[in-house]
Amino acid sequence: MVMQKFRAAAASNRSTLCIGLDPDLARLPEHLTRDAAGIVQFNQAIIEATSDLVCAYKPNIAFYEALGSAGWQALKQTIASIPGHLPIILDAKRGDIGSTAKAYASAAFDELGVDAITLSPYMGYDSLQPFLERADKTCFILCRTSNPGGDDVQNLALANGEPLFLKIAELVAERWNGNQNCGLVVGATYPSEIATIHQRYPELPLLVPGVGSQGGDIGAVLAAAGEQAIINLSRSVLYASSTSSFAEAARDVAQRFLAPKQALNHP
Amino acid sequence: MVMQKFRAAAASNRSTLCIGLDPDLARLPEHLTRDAAGIVQFNQAIIEATSDLVCAYKPNIAFYEALGSAGWQALKQTIASIPGHLPIILDAKRGDIGSTAKAYASAAFDELGVDAITLSPYMGYDSLQPFLERADKTCFILCRTSNPGGDDVQNLALANGEPLFLKIAELVAERWNGNQNCGLVVGATYPSEIATIHQRYPELPLLVPGVGSQGGDIGAVLAAAGEQAIINLSRSVLYASSTSSFAEAARDVAQRFLAPKQALNHP
Repeated sequence: MVMQKFRAAAASNRSTLCIGLDPDLARLPEHLTRDAAGIVQFNQAIIEATSDLVCAYKPNIAFYEALGSAGWQALKQTIASIPGHLPIILDAKRGDIGSTAKAYASAAFDELGVDAITLSPYMGYDSLQPFLERADKTCFILCRTSNPGGDDVQNLALANGEPLFLKIAELVAERWNGNQNCGLVVGATYPSEIATIHQRYPELPLLVPGVGSQGGDIGAVLAAAGEQAIINLSRSVLYASSTSSFAEAARDVAQRFLAPKQALNHP
Repeated sequence: MVMQKFRAAAASNRSTLCIGLDPDLARLPEHLTRDAAGIVQFNQAIIEATSDLVCAYKPNIAFYEALGSAGWQALKQTIASIPGHLPIILDAKRGDIGSTAKAYASAAFDELGVDAITLSPYMGYDSLQPFLERADKTCFILCRTSNPGGDDVQNLALANGEPLFLKIAELVAERWNGNQNCGLVVGATYPSEIATIHQRYPELPLLVPGVGSQGGDIGAVLAAAGEQAIINLSRSVLYASSTSSFAEAARDVAQRFLAPKQALNHP
């Protein structure tokens, strides 16, 4: 069971929070150096302060790539700092033709050794196949994203009157999930759409960014998708403070988001 | 004029061929080491043998990422080996929310210093904005890809009866091309679709993979899009021979593809 590691972490920490490790050099606390070493120090402090509050971490590879090979090393050191029982989702939004997708899958699952990845559906099944075939890994496929431009393509009406993103959910649930290792990325800014997706495909875990800085409401997400929602926080936690006590401030924010959730799950 | 570097290279080499630098360790010639150093040697030989036959090179970042930070260094060395008058398209198919897209744009245009990039449209305008804003760079946006699964999403019929990929072409041409720095990725395996796109949006350059190993016909592509088609070859050129004369074999294949094109342009 591929989601087992997520479920076990969620159960032991009583949390379905995920923290996005997206270190923006310009926003690092003032006392840290603005380079790969500073990023590693920053991430390690965030991880240490929050590892009992989350069910996963999600580094977005873009922030590491921006620093070239030093950034890649920083990503590997970050991954090595995450306690082994906590799953790691590489936020990469990949998708490319066969031989290239194989190389990406190898980069993520073998070279970096992560447990899960985010993928883009635009190029169709064979662009995702090398990821989907890894039955021991989880693939979160972009469905309805939380950004303002999400509507441009995802909300285009198809011939049957329904928006494209619902067709993507259907493709994932009915055609691409043969190894039962798929989930969807669904933005918290659209809770009614989360509810529709969850009602149709209750078996799919949902990775939900958009709570926190982007303004999505955690209560609405939990009402819409319950235990299937893995709720991601990035900037609101990472940059809670720019002082040397940034890690404690990050922990406070994570706990504040967790409180209504725990109340909801354990009344 | 952002396409100027492409046009100048195409004019001086009388070629709109692009060679994809997608080094697959398993397929390198036998005498090269199967590591980052072998990749650099391989790419440099290919570049040296073909730089008078192409209008651009297109490294796909996946093949370098698969080797971690050594791969990143190999990519930088490859980029440094390409003569400065030839534009470089980073095949990355990126697309993510604002702050992340900024990091990707910085990785591509500043850290790697390439001239152009491929992007995925699924997350909409703001996911592409940091790339589109770089008026000195070219953005090739996925429209109709050459892989078998391309149909799964790109060919879904919208409410107006037309396939999704034509709507993507419209979004690019009419909304995202404010800096006149956009092009489309359109697979050679669908020449009639290339013709439709080119007729509607003749101002958009088209990056056309799928000739060569994937079986697309270069004559049909040229008939459909003429001078707007930048025709990409990867595997058919790179792996023309596995002996120590692989670079000469690569040159022969590139010349063979070029012959009907030159005949067509210069009757």
